[in-house]
Amino acid sequence: MATNPDVTKPASPEEQDKFLNDVFQMCMQRAVQASRDRNTPLVNFKKPEELKKLLNFELQGTGESHTNLLALCDKVFDYSVLSGHPYFFNQQIGGLDSYGYAGNLITDALTTNGHTYEIAPVFTMTEFAVLEHMLKLVGFHNGEGTFCPGGSYCGMLAMNVARLQKYPDSKSKGLYGLPRLVTFCSEQAHYSAEKNSTLLGLGTDNCWKVKCDNRGKMIPEEFEKRVIQCKNEGAVPIMVVATAGTTVLGAFDPFHEIADICSRHDIWMHIDAAWGGAALLSQKYKHLCDGVNRADSLAWNPHKMMMAPIQCSVLLLKEKDLLNRCHSINVPYLFQNDKPYDTKYDLSRNLVQCGRSCDALKLWLMWKAKGDSGFESQVNQALAKAEYLTEQIRKRSDFRLVIPEPEYTNVSFWYIPPSMAGKEENADYFKQLASIVPTIKLRMQLSGKLLVGYSPVGDYPTFFRMIVLNDKVNFEDMDHVLNEIERNGRDL
Amino acid sequence: MATNPDVTKPASPEEQDKFLNDVFQMCMQRAVQASRDRNTPLVNFKKPEELKKLLNFELQGTGESHTNLLALCDKVFDYSVLSGHPYFFNQQIGGLDSYGYAGNLITDALTTNGHTYEIAPVFTMTEFAVLEHMLKLVGFHNGEGTFCPGGSYCGMLAMNVARLQKYPDSKSKGLYGLPRLVTFCSEQAHYSAEKNSTLLGLGTDNCWKVKCDNRGKMIPEEFEKRVIQCKNEGAVPIMVVATAGTTVLGAFDPFHEIADICSRHDIWMHIDAAWGGAALLSQKYKHLCDGVNRADSLAWNPHKMMMAPIQCSVLLLKEKDLLNRCHSINVPYLFQNDKPYDTKYDLSRNLVQCGRSCDALKLWLMWKAKGDSGFESQVNQALAKAEYLTEQIRKRSDFRLVIPEPEYTNVSFWYIPPSMAGKEENADYFKQLASIVPTIKLRMQLSGKLLVGYSPVGDYPTFFRMIVLNDKVNFEDMDHVLNEIERNGRDL
Ligand SMILES: Cc1ncc(COP(=O)(O)O)c(C=O)c1O
Ligand SMILES: Cc1ncc(COP(=O)(O)O)c(C=O)c1O
Repeated sequence: MATNPDVTKPASPEEQDKFLNDVFQMCMQRAVQASRDRNTPLVNFKKPEELKKLLNFELQGTGESHTNLLALCDKVFDYSVLSGHPYFFNQQIGGLDSYGYAGNLITDALTTNGHTYEIAPVFTMTEFAVLEHMLKLVGFHNGEGTFCPGGSYCGMLAMNVARLQKYPDSKSKGLYGLPRLVTFCSEQAHYSAEKNSTLLGLGTDNCWKVKCDNRGKMIPEEFEKRVIQCKNEGAVPIMVVATAGTTVLGAFDPFHEIADICSRHDIWMHIDAAWGGAALLSQKYKHLCDGVNRADSLAWNPHKMMMAPIQCSVLLLKEKDLLNRCHSINVPYLFQNDKPYDTKYDLSRNLVQCGRSCDALKLWLMWKAKGDSGFESQVNQALAKAEYLTEQIRKRSDFRLVIPEPEYTNVSFWYIPPSMAGKEENADYFKQLASIVPTIKLRMQLSGKLLVGYSPVGDYPTFFRMIVLNDKVNFEDMDHVLNEIERNGRDL
Repeated sequence: MATNPDVTKPASPEEQDKFLNDVFQMCMQRAVQASRDRNTPLVNFKKPEELKKLLNFELQGTGESHTNLLALCDKVFDYSVLSGHPYFFNQQIGGLDSYGYAGNLITDALTTNGHTYEIAPVFTMTEFAVLEHMLKLVGFHNGEGTFCPGGSYCGMLAMNVARLQKYPDSKSKGLYGLPRLVTFCSEQAHYSAEKNSTLLGLGTDNCWKVKCDNRGKMIPEEFEKRVIQCKNEGAVPIMVVATAGTTVLGAFDPFHEIADICSRHDIWMHIDAAWGGAALLSQKYKHLCDGVNRADSLAWNPHKMMMAPIQCSVLLLKEKDLLNRCHSINVPYLFQNDKPYDTKYDLSRNLVQCGRSCDALKLWLMWKAKGDSGFESQVNQALAKAEYLTEQIRKRSDFRLVIPEPEYTNVSFWYIPPSMAGKEENADYFKQLASIVPTIKLRMQLSGKLLVGYSPVGDYPTFFRMIVLNDKVNFEDMDHVLNEIERNGRDL
């Protein structure tokens, strides 16, 4: 014993530092700087089988030299999507924020576990600071919160808290012996409400979808009808997931009306503001969120509209101590009371998670760099560009808006190729418009020049869904999108 | 409309790049290089209230200059814990791996969402490559897997799959109408089994703890007894969480015996190898995991023993398509069948998560850099150092091992100060030994020179738990730990 086992000779510290420097410079050139240049392709699309031939993904018995590793890293950039590129409109993420990236550099260098103050003191304090600030923005004046791995996870935790505060015994006894519990969301809510219902043992059948109006907003009367129906069936309505900024149309549910119904029927009101929470940052647009302060909990993904690097998701609760009451158990190896600090700072005490990545610092650094005013102008600019885009679509006879007056930065529309101009606008007509959307998208994707998402929703067949959030995008880029779609769809 | 709203003047691209470069150099100096020097303090401990005075965490209306931001970042390093420092033995993480860090630099620069191939092609393929390799190591020859946000989450997903494959209808109907479902784990299993039981609606009372032997291993006869008791009560045993490497003692449950019982009683066998899975990387130590291939699922945290940056957790399943069957729902806005690639590569189709950070690339890059052999020697070295430490403890009369023959790199022990030497070793004696552990730890923590964790477990009162995993730690460091504990505890 005590003899050193065989060691494959690792690179020296100096060689490793050189390697890290080389990789960082590659990141700067191939992502940070490349994504500023509109002429850089934002994707060089390859199918999985092709990609496997171009990049050797397979893991082997022996290690590679730094030279080979750098060549591999170069290929990673060759075939990855530049989500920070101004022509990336494919998803609710993007923008490659310098301060967010800087925050990640630090978080990764100090790689630690956000479960206890002891080994993550600064990260913990940044988490508290950001949460406090966001609680204020929402109007939860005596609340608490936590960062979570994703918006879906936030909704899951909220659902768990909603259930456990109503039936505290179910923490130990489970759902056995309880009546059937029903959760509600609008038919255009994010699918996580349904997935979380399965996960928590309620089942998708007990996640009831409430009808929306033609702008994608939950109809409060329909909600109350369903609540009453639920009670008549002998089930218990426990929670509604209202949405601030739906995924596809960007709709905001009527929070005041929903809150009234919730208080009448003793229902936990959760707001999924994963996407729309950012409106709270703007004096001009925060009215979209009117009434969110009446909710019991709210989920907000700074990794979407605020351009924080993924993952960065926050759950806020109106009432203090609920997280602890619902989740704490006695864990002597990790959470000790004989610590030289107030152990409320050991964040995982109150969570289902044990180990946690430290997701707060990057957002904290962004906020320090921009201030509220920087975020406000970011949101205002995004909305101004979306409004400009909407106006251009109205002006162009070969485009058709799905929703006449979008509320948020989602702009949904069809392109009408010359072959269809002037045709009667019946159901078939829209089906045909829908059918060409994927073709146009694919052409743009293969050209590497533009990525725009598409989706059907409710009665509307597939349409383009533009998402504007990147602060490096300008008004001309909006025209460019429409021109590119025209150019790629003209012959269809 | 279309007029640009007020903008707080942001820094130019060149200024932003300079800032990023400055931050990166700070990371290199203050974390990567600093943590190589044993004379660098690994923590400058401050209480939360003190820290708030030293570092202005509060968020404000306006942004800060780059100069001020850099000063803030400097303070972040001043008061953070250097988990990569060779004297950090506090948790099952550490080591600051250069290739892991490089992988993070790239992942962060390409910041994207790992939910679909379309926007994360390379990340997706690295995820498949790593999973395939790990499946082989475990011996799941036709399995599948996924990265998850944390080992606790892996266990949750496994529990959900165990339930849904047994009661497929519960996906839609929930637990209503089902008999009481019971899960099992050892009394020394990680607490996530219990938390997950609450989360999934089973309740902590239905997570039964099976007795361990004095080395911390589940006693199979006790397990079967409890299974029979459960059935006699009219409940249904659905899952056991066996552990490969318990958190505190590093014990490995007897997998073959447990597997036999599981097949006799039709119970899903999950192995929590969050900590001990790394033994599979070593020819010399993989026997510790004998029988893991008989499990239905296995969770493995590369962010622990393998030194991957947090978060990096993997769930592996023996059978293909279960994840999809249990979790997929129709989500037309995100998962579309008219894509130019096989949509099995859209990973979130099969998950509860929607958005996902791309956690695989960093591990993939580490594996490329080291090869299997590099990881093997990393594990062998860690075990060799733990064995050396164990031997030194045996040799020193003022130390006492908790477990005479540790199986893994957890080494648990008490220090016996001169005032207690030669006393009778009864229950009181050990209680007294336990009582001085936090004092010694605190002294070392305040000196900034050494961080070692402690814990009680089962009948053993609080002891030091050394965790050896960092490949920059050497044999002399083991002696240093004992010397430091002696030096700080001598007067107690
Ligand atoms: C044995 C074991 N299982 C599970 C976990 C939980 O993993 P995580 O902290 O990633 O949730 C841990 C970590 O502490 C562990 O030691
Ligand atoms: C409205 C809404 N809610 C929730 C989510 C889920 O967030 P995440 O992807 O972080 O789980 C999304 C993201 O797609 C969303 O748009």
